[in-house]
Amino acid sequence: MVPGTFTVVQKFGGSSVADATKMAACAKHVLKTKSQVGPKGEKTRVVVVVSAMGDTTDDLIALSKTVTAGSDSVNTDTREMDQLLATGEQAASALVALTLQRMGHKARSLTGWQAGIFCDECFGRASITKIDPNALEELLSQDIIPVIAGFQGLAPDGSVATLGRGGSDTTAVAIAGALGATCEILKDVHGVYTADPRLVPGARRLDAVTYDEMLEAAALGSQVIHPRAVELAKKLKVPVRVLHSHEPEKGSTVIVAEDPSAAGRAVTSVVLKKAVGRISIRGLNNRAGVQSEVFSPIAAAGVPVDDIIQEDDGPGTINLTFTLDQGDAPKAAGIVRAIAGTIGAQAVRIDGALSTVSAVGAGMRNRPGVAAALFEALKHEQVVVENITTSEIRISVVVAEADGPRTARCIHKAFDLASEIASSSSVGSVGGTGAGISIEPLREVKAGSAQSGV
Amino acid sequence: MVPGTFTVVQKFGGSSVADATKMAACAKHVLKTKSQVGPKGEKTRVVVVVSAMGDTTDDLIALSKTVTAGSDSVNTDTREMDQLLATGEQAASALVALTLQRMGHKARSLTGWQAGIFCDECFGRASITKIDPNALEELLSQDIIPVIAGFQGLAPDGSVATLGRGGSDTTAVAIAGALGATCEILKDVHGVYTADPRLVPGARRLDAVTYDEMLEAAALGSQVIHPRAVELAKKLKVPVRVLHSHEPEKGSTVIVAEDPSAAGRAVTSVVLKKAVGRISIRGLNNRAGVQSEVFSPIAAAGVPVDDIIQEDDGPGTINLTFTLDQGDAPKAAGIVRAIAGTIGAQAVRIDGALSTVSAVGAGMRNRPGVAAALFEALKHEQVVVENITTSEIRISVVVAEADGPRTARCIHKAFDLASEIASSSSVGSVGGTGAGISIEPLREVKAGSAQSGV
Repeated sequence: MVPGTFTVVQKFGGSSVADATKMAACAKHVLKTKSQVGPKGEKTRVVVVVSAMGDTTDDLIALSKTVTAGSDSVNTDTREMDQLLATGEQAASALVALTLQRMGHKARSLTGWQAGIFCDECFGRASITKIDPNALEELLSQDIIPVIAGFQGLAPDGSVATLGRGGSDTTAVAIAGALGATCEILKDVHGVYTADPRLVPGARRLDAVTYDEMLEAAALGSQVIHPRAVELAKKLKVPVRVLHSHEPEKGSTVIVAEDPSAAGRAVTSVVLKKAVGRISIRGLNNRAGVQSEVFSPIAAAGVPVDDIIQEDDGPGTINLTFTLDQGDAPKAAGIVRAIAGTIGAQAVRIDGALSTVSAVGAGMRNRPGVAAALFEALKHEQVVVENITTSEIRISVVVAEADGPRTARCIHKAFDLASEIASSSSVGSVGGTGAGISIEPLREVKAGSAQSGV
Repeated sequence: MVPGTFTVVQKFGGSSVADATKMAACAKHVLKTKSQVGPKGEKTRVVVVVSAMGDTTDDLIALSKTVTAGSDSVNTDTREMDQLLATGEQAASALVALTLQRMGHKARSLTGWQAGIFCDECFGRASITKIDPNALEELLSQDIIPVIAGFQGLAPDGSVATLGRGGSDTTAVAIAGALGATCEILKDVHGVYTADPRLVPGARRLDAVTYDEMLEAAALGSQVIHPRAVELAKKLKVPVRVLHSHEPEKGSTVIVAEDPSAAGRAVTSVVLKKAVGRISIRGLNNRAGVQSEVFSPIAAAGVPVDDIIQEDDGPGTINLTFTLDQGDAPKAAGIVRAIAGTIGAQAVRIDGALSTVSAVGAGMRNRPGVAAALFEALKHEQVVVENITTSEIRISVVVAEADGPRTARCIHKAFDLASEIASSSSVGSVGGTGAGISIEPLREVKAGSAQSGV
């Protein structure tokens, strides 16, 4: 942090820099921000982070498949894929720098290694290990706008490594942390909403959400910001603002540690995740380590699992159920069926066409009755709940995919999320009678015991 | 040079790596070379250098124009252009490494900076200043094929700089020099020809040419290999072989210091350059420095000049004539007309639709009568010669563009270039009577005094 200056890191996503016109709109926002004074009257400095243009990354992946055709994609060298994919952001950063120069401002593009971004050797999903801000500070001191290629860093062996999808968000947050800056994520949405506006009429943009709420929403499939970036922002205490790259004046959402505006609210948003699959292993003998025997081979195959539910099925016998992306279900089912005999399962069941609808709110932590209110709303709506899982700040229900949208709308309405001001009934407009019912008892609810954070 | 090993640097041009199929053909050639023992029975090591795929560089330049539209292209930051253009070779190197891996071999792509290529800061046309071969030697010692992104290096300020068009040839030669290796330039031609086979029936592939002949041919517009690469090869004494990337078995041409196969030949090839323009400044007072007053502003505007001819126009008065690419002629003429008054020129004439036809041969150095034989052949063919310029190993005539092809064919025939074996009349099948007429007297030939190497 340089005294007397206010620094903003602005990250533009791929659709925001998809062509010259869109790049010009981004550059205008950068220059407008730079021309404004900081909150304490400081001179504003802007650092830009960009993703690859439009579909560039997908195009490069398709190109790589033409040369690796016939070989097992699992064996494709991730190091080479990273050397290839990193070019997308590198090209975009040079083009945005040229755009800023055309508008009469000093700008310079930087690859990840030129910007001092060091990462580990986990090619394809590397983690940033260190930021050396010297090159950036030097440019900023000369009033040159640095335009950093996101999504990449320098691995210990001198290779270029990428941070995985959403890695440009992480780049921006890490740079902001190193510079003592605030971070803006500019993309094609106006911020974070109480629910998907295409799905829930009356969905409202939130002025603020907490890191934890955003983490839950991201894990549930919200595309607004990558969960790794949110985690890093929480760790580095970087305030992150999400806004529309070409209509930044239309409002935004800030992601912070505590959300004062949510005072009185138990639930701040509703997230629907479609195309959920479910695998259920029935009649397992509940001996020590049986869970590991199931989930280790699934993890080894690289299949991500969402929620895990374990319930009793008579004395010493359990049913082990987990949800996952429907597309991954056949692969996971194959693995489970292959080990069913060894682990002594009586049956394996696979379901698809499900949705998970989640109510998320940091205010849930200290408020009883939230789950009860939610269930009462669903009862009024006559929604059949297939499974329930919870975390400290989330209640998720698994429902038939066809019931997903009306379940989301029902919960949105029950917690009065369309209203700007938290109403007295904001614990749930249907319920409110559930005083004394904390989230804990949920673990005994008939639909199964819940386990989160898997 | 590692004892007991034989190292070959193979450079593949853009059309040779234009798609996955072509990359596979390149990879096969690499692996075949690697599997063969060296000339002294050594183990062969191969280093690959690649250009950007097909039209990638042109596409990136077109993309840059979309963002710089409206600004003067002269002011486009060459540093940013280089950061942008370098991505083309970077992507191609990763894809060729993946291709080699698919075929079961260890390979690793390297950007210029990863390969230890250092250059100066002349963005867009940087010169290689140093090669640190440690990274390459380390990979080779592990039997990993390095695949280097050509055309680029690391500038002193940490930026990526490009070496200009043809820079991948230079990369390959420089790497070969640093590794004590031989160099192969693989492209879409089968080697160097006595003339363009599309133009001159009977044109024949040469087994060998000298660095100097190749430099003259390249300066005259031959596209086979970039003159800077030839200069570097001459300086570093790197033998360079030119062959077809997908039909390497169909023969090749080696570029070396002395060509034993050309013994007895005065002329080894004929080169036609089309679309030549000419600007003539008439009636200049021949005071000291007048040439500088003409050519300094032209050079400052970045216009390359081919040949310069100065002739008397009466006592103390000269005509100054120069040829250049026809496309550059209007710009140069504008500059000359702007200074015509200041320098005291009586008239400025601009001509287009000309061609330069050149006879090139290192054997010309010590052989009299070559020019006379050439002129006699042109007399027989009834070609009107507009201007003449020469160098130590070249005679060029400027003719009307329509006369270019038949002039080339006439010279090709006169010097018996279609024949494998140098005939007794190889000094020129028409002439041979010119004993005692060396090249020097040409400077007094009516068409003008000649000056080369400008």
